[in-house]
Amino acid sequence: MAIDDTLKLKIQLLCGDEIAMGPGKADLLEAIVAHGSISAAARAMDMSYRRAWLLVDAMNRCWSAPLVETSPGRAKSGGARLSEAGRRVLDRYRHLQAALDATAHGDLLDGLARELRDAPKAHAAD
Amino acid sequence: MAIDDTLKLKIQLLCGDEIAMGPGKADLLEAIVAHGSISAAARAMDMSYRRAWLLVDAMNRCWSAPLVETSPGRAKSGGARLSEAGRRVLDRYRHLQAALDATAHGDLLDGLARELRDAPKAHAAD
Repeated sequence: MAIDDTLKLKIQLLCGDEIAMGPGKADLLEAIVAHGSISAAARAMDMSYRRAWLLVDAMNRCWSAPLVETSPGRAKSGGARLSEAGRRVLDRYRHLQAALDATAHGDLLDGLARELRDAPKAHAAD
Repeated sequence: MAIDDTLKLKIQLLCGDEIAMGPGKADLLEAIVAHGSISAAARAMDMSYRRAWLLVDAMNRCWSAPLVETSPGRAKSGGARLSEAGRRVLDRYRHLQAALDATAHGDLLDGLARELRDAPKAHAAD
């Protein structure tokens, strides 16, 4: 089957028991850049405001400097932007992802993908 | 914080919507090698026999050749071993994992880890 449909790579950075960065948090940071507020980013990702706020809160507690800066006033209606640290961490995370993707897509993955069926066989009788 | 506690890398190989190989399935294959049956491997991994059987069934349906061979007779009491394909796929998956780990543990991860706190800050007042 096609190599690009074969591999799923999930890269998480941990701070104690918390996930400091991962695929969902990185996408949320990009949505905040694109939409200018946590609530608009949440809407664009079809996520509740509360969930987006919790992800931002976790990121801001895990890194030395907050990744997301919110305007003073009511958080929900105010704007949000990435701090310098936020832009740097997001950029490095995407680079790490690209480096791992490039490493994966070589002989080892080819060898594995060749042995995969295009689709799973039907369930064996239980 | 220590680099080794920082990165969590999850590598999944997909066959359609099924996970053909991933961390849990690879560990199960190793437990089958070590313990010689699906039920003993499940016990060693503190997993129900049914769950282990479902993971083996998914693997056997996703790859061109079954990865696990079971002795004839009642599946639950009989022995199980890896097929040649099973040993090859497991070996390649572990190599892929090692290659990605080696790629990750360089400057990019160092740069990210330096900015992580040792532990998350306490929750902000909600």
